[in-house]
Amino acid sequence: MSNNKKHDTQALQDALVAALGNKVSLNPNVLAAHGRDESYHRPYLPNAVVFAEQTQDVVTTLQICRELKAPLIPFGIGSSLEGHVGALTGGVSLDLSGMTRLLEVNAEDMDCRVEAGIDRVRLNEELRDTGLFFPIDPGAPATLGGMAATRASGTNAVKFGTMRDNVLGLTVVTANGEVMRTGTRAPKSSAGYDLVRLFIGSEGTLGVITELQLKLAGQPEAVSAAVVQFDAVEGATQSAILVKQMGVPVARMEFLDARAMGAVNAFSKLDYAEKPTLFFEFHGTEAWVEEQARLVEEITETLGGSDFRWARRQEDRNAIWRARHDAYYAQLALRPGMKGITTDVCVPISRLADCIEETMTDIEPLPFPAPIVGHVGDGNFHCLLVVDVESETEMRAAKDFSARLVERALRMGGTCTGEHGVGHGKLAYMEQEHDAASLAMMRTLKQALDPEGLMNPGKLIPGVGEPLTV
Amino acid sequence: MSNNKKHDTQALQDALVAALGNKVSLNPNVLAAHGRDESYHRPYLPNAVVFAEQTQDVVTTLQICRELKAPLIPFGIGSSLEGHVGALTGGVSLDLSGMTRLLEVNAEDMDCRVEAGIDRVRLNEELRDTGLFFPIDPGAPATLGGMAATRASGTNAVKFGTMRDNVLGLTVVTANGEVMRTGTRAPKSSAGYDLVRLFIGSEGTLGVITELQLKLAGQPEAVSAAVVQFDAVEGATQSAILVKQMGVPVARMEFLDARAMGAVNAFSKLDYAEKPTLFFEFHGTEAWVEEQARLVEEITETLGGSDFRWARRQEDRNAIWRARHDAYYAQLALRPGMKGITTDVCVPISRLADCIEETMTDIEPLPFPAPIVGHVGDGNFHCLLVVDVESETEMRAAKDFSARLVERALRMGGTCTGEHGVGHGKLAYMEQEHDAASLAMMRTLKQALDPEGLMNPGKLIPGVGEPLTV
Repeated sequence: MSNNKKHDTQALQDALVAALGNKVSLNPNVLAAHGRDESYHRPYLPNAVVFAEQTQDVVTTLQICRELKAPLIPFGIGSSLEGHVGALTGGVSLDLSGMTRLLEVNAEDMDCRVEAGIDRVRLNEELRDTGLFFPIDPGAPATLGGMAATRASGTNAVKFGTMRDNVLGLTVVTANGEVMRTGTRAPKSSAGYDLVRLFIGSEGTLGVITELQLKLAGQPEAVSAAVVQFDAVEGATQSAILVKQMGVPVARMEFLDARAMGAVNAFSKLDYAEKPTLFFEFHGTEAWVEEQARLVEEITETLGGSDFRWARRQEDRNAIWRARHDAYYAQLALRPGMKGITTDVCVPISRLADCIEETMTDIEPLPFPAPIVGHVGDGNFHCLLVVDVESETEMRAAKDFSARLVERALRMGGTCTGEHGVGHGKLAYMEQEHDAASLAMMRTLKQALDPEGLMNPGKLIPGVGEPLTV
Repeated sequence: MSNNKKHDTQALQDALVAALGNKVSLNPNVLAAHGRDESYHRPYLPNAVVFAEQTQDVVTTLQICRELKAPLIPFGIGSSLEGHVGALTGGVSLDLSGMTRLLEVNAEDMDCRVEAGIDRVRLNEELRDTGLFFPIDPGAPATLGGMAATRASGTNAVKFGTMRDNVLGLTVVTANGEVMRTGTRAPKSSAGYDLVRLFIGSEGTLGVITELQLKLAGQPEAVSAAVVQFDAVEGATQSAILVKQMGVPVARMEFLDARAMGAVNAFSKLDYAEKPTLFFEFHGTEAWVEEQARLVEEITETLGGSDFRWARRQEDRNAIWRARHDAYYAQLALRPGMKGITTDVCVPISRLADCIEETMTDIEPLPFPAPIVGHVGDGNFHCLLVVDVESETEMRAAKDFSARLVERALRMGGTCTGEHGVGHGKLAYMEQEHDAASLAMMRTLKQALDPEGLMNPGKLIPGVGEPLTV
């Protein structure tokens, strides 16, 4: 399965061009742009890029890869963060960003069908007049195919769940070149193995997602926002726990630590106290968003929250959320010219305060800033390490810190990745997180569905198709 | 994989007794009780029943089955409806109903860990003092293992989802006899293939679930109930659509057709109009359950709803819901002594009115009553065929009706089973519902994870391990 016999690059390029003509690019700049994602991981260039325009292009590409035993790596817009799109052993980068059609909208059923290359921003623009929207928001303007492949989520997973919960069906080109349409538009089904969920989070290692049937949400009648600050992290995390226990259906509930608030103040010219802070968004009727805010104010007050501010008008809401929305760039501005390395652990929410506090202690001696931003309702938080990637010392410190963070999260019953996925950047943690039987079963599934090991090799499963030299 | 070579029954029984002593029963009454579920399907007796008390008993039983190439069929309380537990080719019925421990409750994280044999009624009794409950309610006091294995749901899936959405992790004894613990207590994870979801809905065909980590919900501060009647089915289904589009988080939203209401009136001495009727349950704060009821009253009024009744006090709520709770027995009382055969299609909610109306026309000439009860928020409805199972004419009519109903649902983009599963009763519909590539992939997964074909053979996948003679 390891595909260690190198394929014939020239033959691959020739066959692709012969079959797909100007949908194929061999341009070095294009190859370079497809060999890496947004992360710090070093690039691995493919031998060719195919710009697919339809499912049949995917089938054709896959058949050529099978004939020539060349790897195939699906590519959306390259916003992944763990080296998911690197062509570790060469092969074809299959760019789906040209497959952007919204194929159908079923307003009464609150679902739609899209091609895998449409991004979530464009999808929501196209849905605007329907009264519906697709709620999963990982921040980046990611493609829906990529979001499904990495089981993405983001700021409103606390209400709407992750990609796991919002895909009704998929069209997949399987590793043996068949077009499979799985799932159903019915809201639920018990008819057989859950092939949809098997592909969600599979990171292109089992096949290529070309279309998705998505669940949509109704645009709320009213939206309101709130912000509240705490003297200690624990007040914020305990508030999140109580909000969830009481069933307040907050749409977003985001955490910034004191350091992150400082960066945001500086970047966005705000005057928040530099203290742990929670940002809320509420959806519902006018009466219900007010009731939710009242409940959250009550809860946070008993847990040491102060300066609770609530806003209903859009411009006031935007003012409150600006701090959160600017957070990423505000952190990067702490050290102009440096790169961001984003961690992604997720723990049971009862352990979130412990995990964040231990992590803050661990951050203190680091030679670079590492503010914390968290999807606190999900137990998921990110440290943004603002690092000089040219400095071996800093990179070593960043990697060691990440490893300690993952160990800490796993010790607390958590996971090494809440929403970014494994790629090859987190491969080393899979054996820490999963027991031997689980990993063996993942390998068995990979072997059964991709016996040649051609689908995005070297990702997700340790010891399967890793590069010859790294 | 078809396991057509019959195992040695005597050797199997001897080996089990030698290894597991009085945990093994060969008593003919016990075998008979384990050869069938609650459905009309004919019994298939196992050669032995093992009453497992711990995961190790499952491992031991499985090892013996592997050595002697004998089938193993997991058994909870036998409340399945499609012949899931029949020992089609003999083998061991593995009864997990003795594994009932609530292993841990994490109140702050709103999760718990249970053994697979605990039933949902007992679980909720044990959780009562925690302020939490497990919301999935399929009606029967099913075991959690069985509910996971069939991807069960029920009346409050409209708010809480199905078993797919409420299991964080599983302990599984795999077909090769290993104990695998998969999933995480973190609220979300992108770390690898979704083995949890692969086992949910797998009906014992890939391994035996022995423990589950479950998501829990907070007991609501306030509950209220409402009932409203319509002149036409469409008013009811359109109301359900609008309630969902407006994001009213109803906890239950159930439909009874005119015939079902007539039966309930007679059985429970009620005086409802014999018209299509919706029953609602609302969870939240006092203010919010009132707001939800107000919204639903508004919606249903514009769609022809009449006699809207709303109740907040428990006794009044119970009075409203009694009609729904008594529905099953009320329908059976239409023909004393007869058996119920329950259909289970599920369609996109926009097609629900069409599907129900066509089905009502199809019911008219049937030689038995077939009232309709539906989880209308999910597009899922059941016809309860009250049949003389001794009459060949009636059974033929029932089977033909079921086949037409499934064809209708599939034509409308639905599924042959919303929540009951496939067992062997719905095997014939799998090829209608799934495309060839999907079925091929299901067979590949079965072959990869259970190469000997010993795990609940003859269920879920057509053409794999069916009985030699039926």
